[in-house]
Amino acid sequence: MSLASPSSSVPAGTPAPIGRLGFVGLGAMGLPMAQHLLAHPGGLRVWNRDPAKADSLIAAGATLAASPSDTAEPGGVVFSMVADDAALRAVSTGPAGLVGRLGAGGIHVSCSTVSPDTLRDLARQHAEHGEHLLACPVFGRPDAAAAKKLWVLMAGPAEACARVEPLLSLIGQGAQALGQDHAAAAALKLAGNFMILAAVESIGEAMLMAEQHGVARTDFATFFGRTLFACPIYQNYGMQVAQRRYQPAGFRLRLGLKDMNLVSQAAAQVQVPMPLVDLLRQGLTGAMAKGRGEFDWTGLELGIAEAAGQHPTIPTQT
Amino acid sequence: MSLASPSSSVPAGTPAPIGRLGFVGLGAMGLPMAQHLLAHPGGLRVWNRDPAKADSLIAAGATLAASPSDTAEPGGVVFSMVADDAALRAVSTGPAGLVGRLGAGGIHVSCSTVSPDTLRDLARQHAEHGEHLLACPVFGRPDAAAAKKLWVLMAGPAEACARVEPLLSLIGQGAQALGQDHAAAAALKLAGNFMILAAVESIGEAMLMAEQHGVARTDFATFFGRTLFACPIYQNYGMQVAQRRYQPAGFRLRLGLKDMNLVSQAAAQVQVPMPLVDLLRQGLTGAMAKGRGEFDWTGLELGIAEAAGQHPTIPTQT
Amino acid sequence: MSLASPSSSVPAGTPAPIGRLGFVGLGAMGLPMAQHLLAHPGGLRVWNRDPAKADSLIAAGATLAASPSDTAEPGGVVFSMVADDAALRAVSTGPAGLVGRLGAGGIHVSCSTVSPDTLRDLARQHAEHGEHLLACPVFGRPDAAAAKKLWVLMAGPAEACARVEPLLSLIGQGAQALGQDHAAAAALKLAGNFMILAAVESIGEAMLMAEQHGVARTDFATFFGRTLFACPIYQNYGMQVAQRRYQPAGFRLRLGLKDMNLVSQAAAQVQVPMPLVDLLRQGLTGAMAKGRGEFDWTGLELGIAEAAGQHPTIPTQT
Amino acid sequence: MSLASPSSSVPAGTPAPIGRLGFVGLGAMGLPMAQHLLAHPGGLRVWNRDPAKADSLIAAGATLAASPSDTAEPGGVVFSMVADDAALRAVSTGPAGLVGRLGAGGIHVSCSTVSPDTLRDLARQHAEHGEHLLACPVFGRPDAAAAKKLWVLMAGPAEACARVEPLLSLIGQGAQALGQDHAAAAALKLAGNFMILAAVESIGEAMLMAEQHGVARTDFATFFGRTLFACPIYQNYGMQVAQRRYQPAGFRLRLGLKDMNLVSQAAAQVQVPMPLVDLLRQGLTGAMAKGRGEFDWTGLELGIAEAAGQHPTIPTQT
Repeated sequence: MSLASPSSSVPAGTPAPIGRLGFVGLGAMGLPMAQHLLAHPGGLRVWNRDPAKADSLIAAGATLAASPSDTAEPGGVVFSMVADDAALRAVSTGPAGLVGRLGAGGIHVSCSTVSPDTLRDLARQHAEHGEHLLACPVFGRPDAAAAKKLWVLMAGPAEACARVEPLLSLIGQGAQALGQDHAAAAALKLAGNFMILAAVESIGEAMLMAEQHGVARTDFATFFGRTLFACPIYQNYGMQVAQRRYQPAGFRLRLGLKDMNLVSQAAAQVQVPMPLVDLLRQGLTGAMAKGRGEFDWTGLELGIAEAAGQHPTIPTQT
Repeated sequence: MSLASPSSSVPAGTPAPIGRLGFVGLGAMGLPMAQHLLAHPGGLRVWNRDPAKADSLIAAGATLAASPSDTAEPGGVVFSMVADDAALRAVSTGPAGLVGRLGAGGIHVSCSTVSPDTLRDLARQHAEHGEHLLACPVFGRPDAAAAKKLWVLMAGPAEACARVEPLLSLIGQGAQALGQDHAAAAALKLAGNFMILAAVESIGEAMLMAEQHGVARTDFATFFGRTLFACPIYQNYGMQVAQRRYQPAGFRLRLGLKDMNLVSQAAAQVQVPMPLVDLLRQGLTGAMAKGRGEFDWTGLELGIAEAAGQHPTIPTQT
Repeated sequence: MSLASPSSSVPAGTPAPIGRLGFVGLGAMGLPMAQHLLAHPGGLRVWNRDPAKADSLIAAGATLAASPSDTAEPGGVVFSMVADDAALRAVSTGPAGLVGRLGAGGIHVSCSTVSPDTLRDLARQHAEHGEHLLACPVFGRPDAAAAKKLWVLMAGPAEACARVEPLLSLIGQGAQALGQDHAAAAALKLAGNFMILAAVESIGEAMLMAEQHGVARTDFATFFGRTLFACPIYQNYGMQVAQRRYQPAGFRLRLGLKDMNLVSQAAAQVQVPMPLVDLLRQGLTGAMAKGRGEFDWTGLELGIAEAAGQHPTIPTQT
Repeated sequence: MSLASPSSSVPAGTPAPIGRLGFVGLGAMGLPMAQHLLAHPGGLRVWNRDPAKADSLIAAGATLAASPSDTAEPGGVVFSMVADDAALRAVSTGPAGLVGRLGAGGIHVSCSTVSPDTLRDLARQHAEHGEHLLACPVFGRPDAAAAKKLWVLMAGPAEACARVEPLLSLIGQGAQALGQDHAAAAALKLAGNFMILAAVESIGEAMLMAEQHGVARTDFATFFGRTLFACPIYQNYGMQVAQRRYQPAGFRLRLGLKDMNLVSQAAAQVQVPMPLVDLLRQGLTGAMAKGRGEFDWTGLELGIAEAAGQHPTIPTQT
């Protein structure tokens, strides 16, 4: 299924067949994504900094690569899903990196959440070798990845999009084509994470105010989840905030801050003031100072309550 | 249908029957609500500052009252739906007001969006006469009112809630019972309006940033409306912001500022800092200064773009 | 000495002589101001809600009035210095108030920090009786009042300004004439209080950041007080914040919040967004929630440190 | 004259004599600073990217160096005053840089406004060669530099401070010793620039509010400059904002944004939320988008007025 909108469609044609796939980065997101790609008939060659994470994949038929570059075959397709800009550069450049090892027509499908700048820069480096970079960041937590329910963005050269799109349908609910500019995919992904956390901020402020006027926190979450905001982001995060279940983390607060810093930089680059991003960054910075980097990013809410003189009880981790 | 949650249920029992209803305030919201109440068998007596607004109701069987107090019959039920705190006080107090004219057991169902304080004060005044106030603010625009799709809140004395709840099902999709404290209903209504406008702010900031990185505004709205935020608030407002359709107003910006000021006051009363409310108030204040009080409240977005040096084109009003 | 600037001068002429003065409100500020007015040869008649506060003045020759209105003599001059808008209205209106009791040519010199609106409204009421209101808010804490070092603003009818200016030189270092519009004096006073607290916010944020990079707090205060910001506001508040001496209060935090709310309202009235005022209001609201209403208003700083995960030690009150 | 405070004093002793000085970076600030150093008896060797800037110095007795490293003599002292972190790294590292060319006991006196991190890193690199880095950022605009009225900070190894302090007295009003940690000097300098711009923000917001209530802008600036804020920052910037003289720039807005970004990073590094810095960054980002990068940084104020729907007239550049 394609989400492609009229203004950013993928051209028709008969893309070249794809042989063995590569996958670099088997973290909480990467591993379930790679598992789905085992369905691709050509085989899968994987690499992770800690190779033990690859065990289940190897048991299921994947092979272990000695380096990121070792996952590539000439003209082939390699996915990467790593933690941040630095990690993406690390697996892309240098003697062990993907750049220059994919070869003419090869495609690096980058699924990480990184800055527009990093993607543009790596795309340029790949292009010097006749290789393509596709920017394919994804929305969804690990459980969505496992359930094949990720939403995938896709930006890059049209022929590479056409070739890779069927693979993307193996890992998600469909790909949103965004044209040729890699920055667009990076920006849309960052925009989404920002909007989610902005929703958390609004829920946190409003719920506390209403609670002080006599509305039970779970009633608040239930009501809005059934009515005005009947979508999972508000339903799930609303109840999580109501109950203050911030551990274990679905998405770690320190990564949330990393992402909001990327949003801030992406906005600065195009000279767009985003005061709401700054508000979120302030809250996350304070949460880091309070030792909450490993909390779920919705733990941002605790700072709202503390600024109002509250000392919220956090449920024991289960 | 009741949305009543376990923690705030309405007691069972056999409430007293209700005769003729009254309705005060026949504006864009009040008129369709009153029309639905014509279905009540006991009759409907209506009042509006400008009596011409009542013509269609009278043609359909309602009778015209000479004053707000004239809509009441002893022990009966009168709805009010007016613009703000001052208007609610005007139809409630003084010789022409409802207080003291409903009589023992009579119920004033206040549907307006007003402050917790005003509701508590009027409830006290009604109680001095053995009358009940119910705080029943509603969510939904005029088209939702016409389609009987409002979400209704309900707070006040339990016996009054039990008696009025069947009437509320005539005007909306169900009532969320919130217990005895009128302030809870006021706070939850204000919280909802705040969360809607906070979503608009986040959409506006993110969409502009993404646009500057190459994402078409309507693609942005379409993608998030289908995926992360598949609920009408984001779908409708997202597309409205993408196309900058701020006229004619569905909900006027000047009323949005009034509501955010009520949120701010309600938060100050319980000493909860709400920085995001302040951000919205700043934007709305600037919009008022730019002559946009009659725009839709999503017109808040224009200030985001202008702060980034943009001069957005606004489509001609249709 | 006059601070009057060219654009707002007081007309020359021979003002009518002034007999006995009145003074209403003998709090921490009013008492030392009234003491200086004992130097006026015509006598002084004083009123305070708690008459015990007048003892020292009476011992020094003042007489005690039975009500605010009782301080007035026909065509005379009465000063008032009270806590807020409500208190000013209370001593001005009603049977015991000044309005209508000063008589033709009489002057009410209002020194309180109140809203532009309240002043305009009271000026109108006085004018209906041929009386004048002068808006004369003052800058300075009680020690400055005692030392005759207040800075006084002055707005109102020119003839009243000319008549009262010599009296103002008894209580301060000079009067800044601001023309006929009472709102100008109210706005300038509020602006000053805002700028002071904005300086405290900037000191608090910067000092904490620098401290975390190895700069001792008192070194920070000393350096800037000697160099870039060699003026008492930065010197005194800088050292106070460095040492976190927030008790006893020079100016109570709860009054600081009252003033920032007045600033916010005055700004809203003329549709000027003031995001920095909102930032201060958020911090003060949080401080109120933490039980710091009786701290000095510089105690705002504690919230900055707490948002950064600090638990500052506050010196024991001395 | 030393501003050294008790907690951060420079040890006594007999420092080694200093021969020829070097100076790197002859911009608007560096040139007048270098001119004062001509008073040092040992001679001055200067370098600038554009050598034409050195003409007046050479005419006065300085010699021209072929590279930054060429300004150094073994064990000698070289000052640098460049635009930003990148420029400081460029003149410090690599074959033409100062690192490794000063030799044992040599001192690099860095006067630029840069990040704590950059200074710590360069200090480490110099130390590997037995060289010292002193962090000596300065406060003051070019006219203050010309008038020998700069305020100089000083952090680094004690023996290097003792040796260099007499030279610093040639360029400013005294040096504030801040101990051994270079980051402290960087942080204090950034803190000062932040506090200046925070003052501008507060002046801008308050002046506009007061203006709309009838206070002339120049009256506002004059009054506060004489009373509450009788120090040059408020006096000069207050009048500049009152008259909106933003061209030509004393300190360019784009450099102001660079500095506020450095403040933001320095704060993030120590996990201190600084909401007021973010407010300033938003305003400066908007000003950049509006093409005001070459305005004086006080031009931040225009955005405040524009957010309130004003279209301020800017005086023609003179």
